[in-house]
Amino acid sequence: MNQKLSSLLLPLSLHNFIGRPLHLVPTPCLLIDEKAYERNLMLMKNRAKELNEMVMTRAHFKAHKCPAIAKDQIERGGAIGVCCQKLSEAVEALKAVDDVLISNEVVNVDKLRVIRNMNEISGKTISLCVDNEQIVTLIDKIMAESNEPNQKLQLVVEYNVGQNRCGTNSEEETLKLIKLIEKCKHVEFKGLQCYKGANQHIVKYEDRKEAVARVVEKVKRLLDYLSQNGVFVKYVTGGGTGTFEFEASSDVFTEIQPGSYLFGDADYGKILTSSNGKTMLEDESAFSQSLYILTTIVSKVPNTRIVVDAGLKASSLDSGVPIIADAEHRKILSNYKPGGDEHGIFEAHSEKAQELINSLNVGDVLKLIPGHVDPTFNMYDMVAFFNPDNHLITRVESITARGPGI
Amino acid sequence: MNQKLSSLLLPLSLHNFIGRPLHLVPTPCLLIDEKAYERNLMLMKNRAKELNEMVMTRAHFKAHKCPAIAKDQIERGGAIGVCCQKLSEAVEALKAVDDVLISNEVVNVDKLRVIRNMNEISGKTISLCVDNEQIVTLIDKIMAESNEPNQKLQLVVEYNVGQNRCGTNSEEETLKLIKLIEKCKHVEFKGLQCYKGANQHIVKYEDRKEAVARVVEKVKRLLDYLSQNGVFVKYVTGGGTGTFEFEASSDVFTEIQPGSYLFGDADYGKILTSSNGKTMLEDESAFSQSLYILTTIVSKVPNTRIVVDAGLKASSLDSGVPIIADAEHRKILSNYKPGGDEHGIFEAHSEKAQELINSLNVGDVLKLIPGHVDPTFNMYDMVAFFNPDNHLITRVESITARGPGI
Repeated sequence: MNQKLSSLLLPLSLHNFIGRPLHLVPTPCLLIDEKAYERNLMLMKNRAKELNEMVMTRAHFKAHKCPAIAKDQIERGGAIGVCCQKLSEAVEALKAVDDVLISNEVVNVDKLRVIRNMNEISGKTISLCVDNEQIVTLIDKIMAESNEPNQKLQLVVEYNVGQNRCGTNSEEETLKLIKLIEKCKHVEFKGLQCYKGANQHIVKYEDRKEAVARVVEKVKRLLDYLSQNGVFVKYVTGGGTGTFEFEASSDVFTEIQPGSYLFGDADYGKILTSSNGKTMLEDESAFSQSLYILTTIVSKVPNTRIVVDAGLKASSLDSGVPIIADAEHRKILSNYKPGGDEHGIFEAHSEKAQELINSLNVGDVLKLIPGHVDPTFNMYDMVAFFNPDNHLITRVESITARGPGI
Repeated sequence: MNQKLSSLLLPLSLHNFIGRPLHLVPTPCLLIDEKAYERNLMLMKNRAKELNEMVMTRAHFKAHKCPAIAKDQIERGGAIGVCCQKLSEAVEALKAVDDVLISNEVVNVDKLRVIRNMNEISGKTISLCVDNEQIVTLIDKIMAESNEPNQKLQLVVEYNVGQNRCGTNSEEETLKLIKLIEKCKHVEFKGLQCYKGANQHIVKYEDRKEAVARVVEKVKRLLDYLSQNGVFVKYVTGGGTGTFEFEASSDVFTEIQPGSYLFGDADYGKILTSSNGKTMLEDESAFSQSLYILTTIVSKVPNTRIVVDAGLKASSLDSGVPIIADAEHRKILSNYKPGGDEHGIFEAHSEKAQELINSLNVGDVLKLIPGHVDPTFNMYDMVAFFNPDNHLITRVESITARGPGI
């Protein structure tokens, strides 16, 4: 009976909707506009090359957690590898790419053993961030237990450039940690991670540019100090969608880590390009919004409100609420109100909004732009691509590395 | 190679940690204190009976989305069935229980066909909320296509008692909808859902009581109006953890829908019991906090901050940030700051906090209380039970109905 029950849901599987129109799809559904996606893929490839041929692009896997998308980024999008925040992401990423940086600190013994085995079994390039002497010693010890004791794990020292999260907190501490790594037999010093995510969300272009310039100055001082002490750093990674052009042209960063560029969200939609247009929403020279949540109107009160089936389980609210994708409708009905785990509410606060609500029906679908790419992807097991010209579903991919972050 | 890669994660499977101590568990991990859980299960059973023998308890499956926990609620906890918000929850719930109310509006044709098949195949009691004439007509039509055309689907009319989300919005509209249902051949009018979730989070006990009294008055007026028009309602469902005692003793509600009572969260921890103690945190006569997020300190700056691995993927922030479980530590270090998808930051703002931070080490685990039960469960695929006396993992269960809400 239980098997029979489980099979009840098969007709709702997204794969059945390939070739069918958006308005039939069971919602909430995570959607990608395939044309905007393709355009973003090419734009990042060309833009990165144009800015600095020597700087590599390492796409951030945590943005989507989907091996098929990582494959596109490597094969067609100019990325040389990916970075991941968690082991489950790294394992899935390795199925599609050959070079994975775990751009985060890992300290649990069993997790570190998994990284050791990953390094041994995959035969691919794996590196890991560290910021702590005890953990470096622990990693060295765990790596020594390898079946192939000559294998070394590449370690990237994270340096706190103002994010005030992980990372070493002074030039002296950084040097000391690198010296320790160099002394260890089973690990190798790869370079530095200098990441300040907050900079990417500074609204004004010039302010963002200045904020990155301050980070670059700090990194330069560190590199000078290290070289004065005999450490020459060949690898500096950091930056993301909102700031990559500044890191790429800094002559200090050798690698950028953009992720959201491929999708866009309401939060990135607030930051302005050099021509003062909203990224992904207005400035056509910038990346295009490609990511949507498809939602259905499940209840309606004429003149008053519509209720959609996209609630806390369908769109992460940490960086703001989702917004209606249609620009004209968004101007009229902008006030998404969370209505619990399974509901979102749009209330009419003007005559025009009343008209819009009255023109919509229970059962109609709407496209929303999520507040924040990464934790929204984390809610879904599947993502569907659609053709924006004929509104048909064209491709469905599995999000295989979602989860709490093991 | 891909299979080999996937098997790398097996050592981190929670099942391997049964019988092992908390401090070895790979984090973030969703945890239940088995003693507090057991106590909550019995307390709800006894309290509901004590308040009103005639009122049934329908546990809310959406709180945990875990069939094994639903089984405990039915077999030992006095619940007669469960309610679910989504089809994937209903299918999983039916594996453990015989009576499922989908306490939400469903309008997509393919989803409604799944409910029809569920009704036909399971042989169990299934009911569904409605608030719209067109949808009732659609459901009737879809039910008519059943292989067993004599089967009827039980419909519960949702009445808006102030939640201002779904539900009919006047007595007349409600009557009209019921009359339509009564005319249809393939559906049956079961009763009313009168749910105002916001009431459950009103901090003061007397204010909560008054707010529910206003709902009860509204429902009474509706019932009078309906009976004057020949409709006698035998079933009124609603209420939840924060208010169930008022609904249960109202002589209007025949069923309560508590879910969070079994777990507790930081948000419920703010509401006060009749003796002005904080529910789940202080008042020992009330439910006990049983749900935790186990997190590891992954970075530390002495005197300044600790960084834990519980970020946006580990605890939903919609109803507030997680708090430290240890009451003494919480007083000293209360300021969880989200640090992105994979990090949470506790900063020292006092000398005592500096001392506490200095006494903790990278690699140490901490228990946090999540801000909000339901969307936090939704992030995990597994939950581990532990014995609070010896801090060993005792049981691991699968959360099989998480997801965006299909």
